[in-house]
Amino acid sequence: MRDLNAIGRIGIGDRGAVTRLVFSIKELRSRQVLIHLMRQAGLKIHIDAIGNIFGRFGGSDPRAPAVLAGSHLDTVIHGGKYDGPVGVIGALEAIRTIKENSIPVRSPLEVVCFVGEESSRFGFSTLGSSLVAGEVHPKDLTNAIDPQGTKLADVLSSLGIAQRGLKRLKRSPMSLKAYLELHIEQGPILEAKGKRIGLVTSIAAPSRFKVIFKGQADHSGTTPMDMRKDALVAAAQLIEYIEKICRKNASMAQGRVVGTVGAMKIEPGVINAVPGRTELSVDIRGTSAQSKNRVARMVKQQARTIAMRRDIRFEVLTIREEDPVPLDKRLLRVTRELCDDQGIDYEIMPSGAGHDAMQMAKITPAGMIFVPSKRGISHNPLEWTDPADITLGTQLLMETMVRVANEKL
Amino acid sequence: MRDLNAIGRIGIGDRGAVTRLVFSIKELRSRQVLIHLMRQAGLKIHIDAIGNIFGRFGGSDPRAPAVLAGSHLDTVIHGGKYDGPVGVIGALEAIRTIKENSIPVRSPLEVVCFVGEESSRFGFSTLGSSLVAGEVHPKDLTNAIDPQGTKLADVLSSLGIAQRGLKRLKRSPMSLKAYLELHIEQGPILEAKGKRIGLVTSIAAPSRFKVIFKGQADHSGTTPMDMRKDALVAAAQLIEYIEKICRKNASMAQGRVVGTVGAMKIEPGVINAVPGRTELSVDIRGTSAQSKNRVARMVKQQARTIAMRRDIRFEVLTIREEDPVPLDKRLLRVTRELCDDQGIDYEIMPSGAGHDAMQMAKITPAGMIFVPSKRGISHNPLEWTDPADITLGTQLLMETMVRVANEKL
Repeated sequence: MRDLNAIGRIGIGDRGAVTRLVFSIKELRSRQVLIHLMRQAGLKIHIDAIGNIFGRFGGSDPRAPAVLAGSHLDTVIHGGKYDGPVGVIGALEAIRTIKENSIPVRSPLEVVCFVGEESSRFGFSTLGSSLVAGEVHPKDLTNAIDPQGTKLADVLSSLGIAQRGLKRLKRSPMSLKAYLELHIEQGPILEAKGKRIGLVTSIAAPSRFKVIFKGQADHSGTTPMDMRKDALVAAAQLIEYIEKICRKNASMAQGRVVGTVGAMKIEPGVINAVPGRTELSVDIRGTSAQSKNRVARMVKQQARTIAMRRDIRFEVLTIREEDPVPLDKRLLRVTRELCDDQGIDYEIMPSGAGHDAMQMAKITPAGMIFVPSKRGISHNPLEWTDPADITLGTQLLMETMVRVANEKL
Repeated sequence: MRDLNAIGRIGIGDRGAVTRLVFSIKELRSRQVLIHLMRQAGLKIHIDAIGNIFGRFGGSDPRAPAVLAGSHLDTVIHGGKYDGPVGVIGALEAIRTIKENSIPVRSPLEVVCFVGEESSRFGFSTLGSSLVAGEVHPKDLTNAIDPQGTKLADVLSSLGIAQRGLKRLKRSPMSLKAYLELHIEQGPILEAKGKRIGLVTSIAAPSRFKVIFKGQADHSGTTPMDMRKDALVAAAQLIEYIEKICRKNASMAQGRVVGTVGAMKIEPGVINAVPGRTELSVDIRGTSAQSKNRVARMVKQQARTIAMRRDIRFEVLTIREEDPVPLDKRLLRVTRELCDDQGIDYEIMPSGAGHDAMQMAKITPAGMIFVPSKRGISHNPLEWTDPADITLGTQLLMETMVRVANEKL
């Protein structure tokens, strides 16, 4: 908790809001503190070309594939102090405890801090772990630009990071035995169920798209109801439909689909004009690609039906299409057994939010442990997890790392 | 049409958009052109303390109450060239024609240009006619402020208009026999029905209010559907209800109620967050105060029902409550008879938009004549009325003025 609070003070502002955008001076400072802590713990430090930091503790068989655990230190704008750091400091504390208590481990253990998990600056999430998983072509990345107009390519140059180095970032799957990530839930389920630990089955992925309705802007006083082409009433009908169809597909068996219209533009957007154009930002997520894609298709179909019935035009623009990522069943069984042995009440659940684990799962068995978020709040200064729960999660992470490091493959 | 086009060129910009905000240099210039035209026509000019311009042509009984006709020359931002000027130049042309053809009239005739009918600059509509009708306390007015932060009080001072003069602006009802206003419809009804003239029964008035739903902002990926308090879905249900209830009350018998949500604020308003707060701007209008107020009450009641069902909070803030204004039945009969005599196909209809006539109706019998708006568009550079229709409307205005001026009271 002391180290977690030390990291949490870097980039702290009004009302306890923490802002450490990737490659900002604050975020770089948090990495420096981590490097210092790793050094104090006697870990062997390796920093790759993009800036991912690995701290290694050799096991009894130094050539065995390593058990990797970690998360990220960057934050959103005005975020909290636990989203990310809990997993990095948790893994560090796990390794320190193993070392201090001379707990025998066969495989080497590594703590990792991935660069740029949050998309808040360059619109690109899980930057560091994507590169480690060999998922992103560096050229796609470096065209990214932040809201201030700064190119990621220029940021890398100014930090002395050579783009040709990024091509060799992918880590060999042979060098890894597993990836484990401790993280706050960022949702309300554990608190609502009174559970202190969540064991994650899979990471949901979003279909994101815009629906644009084009009706006709008219005078709100002089245009009779039956002569209107109100693009906002069309939007309202779609918003209601999204809630209805997602409620029908909310069960685990139906892929736990959730759907949200989070933002909308209305034109002309004045009190005395019938809206002529609306643009809705739709986010559909699910833990099964099939369910999620089916619901997304139904929402688009319903947009068409509404537009036809109201005799207006519509358009759908795809923003992003991703597939849900199942996590490793064997790792889930290990964490489950550890919880059962110790009488810890856990919840088996999917993750609605994205994490570095979804990239790492592409090259090694990956598992995640959740601890409760008070009122489900994250990406907000009010983000809070009870220190006792963080401690319990860290303990479980440590025991899992030991068990996996000593397991025969 | 020549004079109308001359006025239309003042304040013209890109794509033919006309901007003559009240007390702007462009609007003042349009008034100057009108004064010049009135002088050329040999009218006796009177300008009152706020700047309303009256041009008088004495009838055979100069002490008889005058028949007043006119409208306004100010426009919205990026408006058209017919909303307002058609009524001012139409009245001027009517009086010129009467004079040139020595048509005998007993009562004096007056053309009037009212100051600031549009609310676009100071948020205050029918400024000049309200003062002439004795409706506004000058103190309320002068606190008004424009979006650039300029106070109406300072604008009046800079133009040398003494505020104490505003108290004596109310015109004696004894000095007036009737007020007539020729105006573009600003709606689609005449075009849809293929009519060239609209005879106005009453002017609808709005109930304007804000409905604020307060749910809870949550992560769009991690918050299950049944744990959400989505303020946007609540708003969507109210938007649909407003359309439904207004469609039910759309007939003339039911007070021709129309209802619109023209603008909405969504917080936090990002694609990956469940909306925690929405603020809807609601505009309900009707030609019967009873119907309009009943529908407004039902909308507020429905907001309460939605909020209760969804276990969220709500609030209603009144913006404006006005009563519909019936126009004079005798004047309507006169215009109707004139149309019948000449085989002009007309529509008896209410006005959905507000006009100076609704103020003048408080001190004298008031009547309005509409000419069609192409596609119902106004407050837009695409605003258009066929010159033949403007001519027909002006002809009818002239004949009405003559008939009323010669009628016994």
